[in-house]
Amino acid sequence: MIRVGVVGGTGYTGVELLRLLHGHGQAGVEAVTSRSEAGRPVSELFPSLRGRFDLHYIEPAIDVLSGCDVVFFATPNGTAMEIAPDLLAAGVRIIDLAADFRLRDAGLWETWYGVPHRCPELLQEAVYGLPEVNRARIREARVVANPGCYPTAVQLGLLPLLEGGLVDPGRLIADAKSGVSGAGRKESFTTQYCEAGDAFKAYGVTGHRHLPEIVQELESVSGSKVGLTFVPHLAPMIRGIHATLYAELLSGDVDLQKVYEERYGDEPFIDVMPPGSHPNTASVRGENVLRLACHRPGNGKTVVVLVVEDNLVKGASGQAIQNMNIMFGFDEREGLASGAVCP
Amino acid sequence: MIRVGVVGGTGYTGVELLRLLHGHGQAGVEAVTSRSEAGRPVSELFPSLRGRFDLHYIEPAIDVLSGCDVVFFATPNGTAMEIAPDLLAAGVRIIDLAADFRLRDAGLWETWYGVPHRCPELLQEAVYGLPEVNRARIREARVVANPGCYPTAVQLGLLPLLEGGLVDPGRLIADAKSGVSGAGRKESFTTQYCEAGDAFKAYGVTGHRHLPEIVQELESVSGSKVGLTFVPHLAPMIRGIHATLYAELLSGDVDLQKVYEERYGDEPFIDVMPPGSHPNTASVRGENVLRLACHRPGNGKTVVVLVVEDNLVKGASGQAIQNMNIMFGFDEREGLASGAVCP
Amino acid sequence: MIRVGVVGGTGYTGVELLRLLHGHGQAGVEAVTSRSEAGRPVSELFPSLRGRFDLHYIEPAIDVLSGCDVVFFATPNGTAMEIAPDLLAAGVRIIDLAADFRLRDAGLWETWYGVPHRCPELLQEAVYGLPEVNRARIREARVVANPGCYPTAVQLGLLPLLEGGLVDPGRLIADAKSGVSGAGRKESFTTQYCEAGDAFKAYGVTGHRHLPEIVQELESVSGSKVGLTFVPHLAPMIRGIHATLYAELLSGDVDLQKVYEERYGDEPFIDVMPPGSHPNTASVRGENVLRLACHRPGNGKTVVVLVVEDNLVKGASGQAIQNMNIMFGFDEREGLASGAVCP
Amino acid sequence: MIRVGVVGGTGYTGVELLRLLHGHGQAGVEAVTSRSEAGRPVSELFPSLRGRFDLHYIEPAIDVLSGCDVVFFATPNGTAMEIAPDLLAAGVRIIDLAADFRLRDAGLWETWYGVPHRCPELLQEAVYGLPEVNRARIREARVVANPGCYPTAVQLGLLPLLEGGLVDPGRLIADAKSGVSGAGRKESFTTQYCEAGDAFKAYGVTGHRHLPEIVQELESVSGSKVGLTFVPHLAPMIRGIHATLYAELLSGDVDLQKVYEERYGDEPFIDVMPPGSHPNTASVRGENVLRLACHRPGNGKTVVVLVVEDNLVKGASGQAIQNMNIMFGFDEREGLASGAVCP
Repeated sequence: MIRVGVVGGTGYTGVELLRLLHGHGQAGVEAVTSRSEAGRPVSELFPSLRGRFDLHYIEPAIDVLSGCDVVFFATPNGTAMEIAPDLLAAGVRIIDLAADFRLRDAGLWETWYGVPHRCPELLQEAVYGLPEVNRARIREARVVANPGCYPTAVQLGLLPLLEGGLVDPGRLIADAKSGVSGAGRKESFTTQYCEAGDAFKAYGVTGHRHLPEIVQELESVSGSKVGLTFVPHLAPMIRGIHATLYAELLSGDVDLQKVYEERYGDEPFIDVMPPGSHPNTASVRGENVLRLACHRPGNGKTVVVLVVEDNLVKGASGQAIQNMNIMFGFDEREGLASGAVCP
Repeated sequence: MIRVGVVGGTGYTGVELLRLLHGHGQAGVEAVTSRSEAGRPVSELFPSLRGRFDLHYIEPAIDVLSGCDVVFFATPNGTAMEIAPDLLAAGVRIIDLAADFRLRDAGLWETWYGVPHRCPELLQEAVYGLPEVNRARIREARVVANPGCYPTAVQLGLLPLLEGGLVDPGRLIADAKSGVSGAGRKESFTTQYCEAGDAFKAYGVTGHRHLPEIVQELESVSGSKVGLTFVPHLAPMIRGIHATLYAELLSGDVDLQKVYEERYGDEPFIDVMPPGSHPNTASVRGENVLRLACHRPGNGKTVVVLVVEDNLVKGASGQAIQNMNIMFGFDEREGLASGAVCP
Repeated sequence: MIRVGVVGGTGYTGVELLRLLHGHGQAGVEAVTSRSEAGRPVSELFPSLRGRFDLHYIEPAIDVLSGCDVVFFATPNGTAMEIAPDLLAAGVRIIDLAADFRLRDAGLWETWYGVPHRCPELLQEAVYGLPEVNRARIREARVVANPGCYPTAVQLGLLPLLEGGLVDPGRLIADAKSGVSGAGRKESFTTQYCEAGDAFKAYGVTGHRHLPEIVQELESVSGSKVGLTFVPHLAPMIRGIHATLYAELLSGDVDLQKVYEERYGDEPFIDVMPPGSHPNTASVRGENVLRLACHRPGNGKTVVVLVVEDNLVKGASGQAIQNMNIMFGFDEREGLASGAVCP
Repeated sequence: MIRVGVVGGTGYTGVELLRLLHGHGQAGVEAVTSRSEAGRPVSELFPSLRGRFDLHYIEPAIDVLSGCDVVFFATPNGTAMEIAPDLLAAGVRIIDLAADFRLRDAGLWETWYGVPHRCPELLQEAVYGLPEVNRARIREARVVANPGCYPTAVQLGLLPLLEGGLVDPGRLIADAKSGVSGAGRKESFTTQYCEAGDAFKAYGVTGHRHLPEIVQELESVSGSKVGLTFVPHLAPMIRGIHATLYAELLSGDVDLQKVYEERYGDEPFIDVMPPGSHPNTASVRGENVLRLACHRPGNGKTVVVLVVEDNLVKGASGQAIQNMNIMFGFDEREGLASGAVCP
């Protein structure tokens, strides 16, 4: 049993980590921190955890966290970078669910996140935690930057096309729809029931923080400049991301179904559906799986890839545990076996 | 007061017509037909109409309908064409909310709707009921083909770009999301609460019946071949369509905001929002308005147009009444004045 | 045209007042106040009002409001009592949608609302704005205390039973379910989409502020002590209240349907459904109507009354306009004619 | 590993059984039957099961089912009684999730279900599968009648009060609210998204089939005649039942919290919340737990018990597996360990 710490356990990715870790046979939660809730039982804040965790929130103290083998940061952006160096010095490995280590360029990070990076020297070392791309490097990583929910869906949907050089990398469109939990557990007007319910809208069309992360990684696999139009939308559902991806084929002579099946055939958490399928976000509710289908309407030059995932699982906490399993040599499916709750 | 008949008043577009006609000062509902519900009070099927209509459903009899000035068809595809010639012969004007008169090519109609057209001679005469394009012709029309919900949103969103020759007509993408009422009032699995709720999926990616209608009309205004990828999605909400439209600018030197404001400045039911806006479907719930905003992310070549409407109002019954108002010389806003119910 | 002021126009009852007043033929909105949004266009906060109101929020200044014939308070509890005396002195009539004038006993008011009442002398003068009970007094009132959403549903459901002395007044149960908009437009955790969506819970079982108001009024009509257990619940919908009321018949020899139909036969906004009916909140969405049905399961001693209303309309803003119509001698239906938006 | 058969695996209780059984370490699914879907892969109907079950639906053949140790019936009422005798003769144990074996009186069964019972001789032998009451008898049972979703919530909420003789058994009220999945997976108007969404209504007030089952069992534990008013409601959510129970205390001198905690202290799947709590259906989504809290408003004579469960888990399939675990001597928690998916 490894010892696990969770920093910032009061948000939705935090409670989801705890739900999944409770069923993990080789990892035990030692500490869950929260400045605002220190002293309060975790199950008081989250009654769904009643009877499962006897833990109280504690202040995020380095000495306690230093006793852990791995620490998850389920915190706002800019938190992990504050204490990461100290934890690493104490031999703790880190999985950050926020954005602190996702960009390799400290200047770009500052541009998008508005403050200077506190430990830019770690940006090169940190491994982008998309197992389907970086599994070997994740195994050895001290710092894993867990991808954002949108980036996971968009990248895994486009990867086989770009790796194979099959589409024009300068003409990519990602029209993505997210459930409201993607905005985190916080008081805000836009995520009120009466604002987000029975409603649908785009947001951040002029620029969303997930864009540079996606472009960085897609350019890395494609080896060329990527032009991506990314439009996120807020959908009236709790969990789930549906990414509808559009790309332009360079040649019509390609068996797309085969391309995807071969690329992902061995992946434990990617499900390539049969031709003609339309994946439903409900089919992945609570499960660490990304389900996709590819189409070519009218047999034309435009490829349409439909991708679904649970933003809190494969898009966040489930993927974080998958990364932990890889880092510690566990079965990659450990703690991630339970199925989607559907309907 | 003109005399109005509604054929097929048991669906959602039917009840929406009745809701709006109740507040119309110059039109009175004479007859509402339904084969299956004949004899039953309309307000028994739709308690929301209790106290508003004392009507019972009747069988769709030509002699009764012939006494009307105008007959709306809120029926499945293929119904209006059966009795349209008889009604026209009796001097009745027709507004069909289904697809019977939307395509000018009878062969194309048969391809998409699976049966031969019964009165192909009317296809050339029928006027496509998009007032923002065909107002003058609608005024004189005997048969108005009320546009589909998706086509209304997609066309009105793309029109100013195509009319101005501003974008590549061969590279258009319409990623559209519809509330469940767009599927009509019928028993089906996919529209069950437990199937459609807290869920999101695309459908009909290989081909949707609204595609040929959109292409026909867009080619008509652009004067050139149109290449459109149209992907509809089912969103967990009752009403509302959100169309996210992507097009590629031919030249970067254009003031898009001005293009839209000039094109739609005099339109009573189109609202061009200020730059940077993100229209919300909730803001049009129950109202006959189409609200849009245009963006150009990163000031690049891709235009993103965000369009919302209530699929049952500007996307169906409200637009049908707008057409009736034009046909009979009423104020175009008559019966359509009440505002969106929001939240 | 009378001149109308709205104090506190940034909440859901405020925007609903504006929606309804826009369609009112004899009342014009002169001023909408908000301390926090002063200077901002109303339609910027509420895009659903775009094109309908050219107003900007202003500071709540007595001199401006003094020029109005009537002022609505769509404010938090405790606001109206601060400036009501000044407005009355200026000859302005007042309709308070909050709780400031609902209780006649200033001590009881302080107990439930936590602060001393600022103008207790007005509590005796103020008229409780339930038209079905106090129509004549409302006509002459300077101050109308518009009932709460729960109290409207519970009282109108129980009134005929208590007025007729038909049930045991000491054994009343009101199990009420409210849509989330009943909590107002504010940032809070419990009303977040991810907290309130796909979820159901009771709240305030130990005591809800609407209880004393209901008891006061029911005791007034029944002439005896009332024992009421009131349990409110939060339901995952935007609008709507469903009150399920239980009472114990003193004698089995009574035609309940007739009792309700006779009591409410002349009421323009109460719909007594046929025996065996189950009213649906969706049937009153956006409309100023209260719909009810009474049952007597197994023909036993327990009466079950099912009541629905839109909490923002008959439960708040619609009823406020109904009161205004009565106060100024307008047709009681003016501005309240448009039907429920359903589905 | 025992061998499990599922008859009628196309409904929501069927797919939920499969989801839970997939994680069960001592039970393997041998056969899933469906007349309508025979030959089709189970995961085609339920994509959420993709990668988990390689099974195809088969015709419900006695010879195949006879090879099982236990057969679950996730079928409409009236199906299990057709083949139960044959299976018992073959030594198979039966857990019926429908109503066939819930009532001990064959005449009463016929009254409520409209057809004569096919094997009335089994009604006395069958054990009502509420483990908290009948654990010992379930262990030995050949036929377990799994309780309905409403009856589980209502009985477990009232049991401690009736067992202790603390309340008037003639004045019980159960105001119950169910998610839409309680209606099963079938095409119907009332459960359409546009009918059930953003809506709330009571139904079956004149009599619901779950009433006699509840009364039979409550009379059994209370030893006296029970008078229960049971009003079910349809709430706009997918899963979850919230029962609000009202009873009248015979004496005020009782520590209700202690009564519940002592009664249920050893129960693995009942969570008595602290005083003042309001359980939320969302906190049990997907988990086999019933969570409750008891209140006594104003310290009066009326007890209010708030009970939540997931209607498909503790209200159906989870409880069925709990019963199987008891019958076969497994750890009662086996296969039921994963936590609620919340939010």
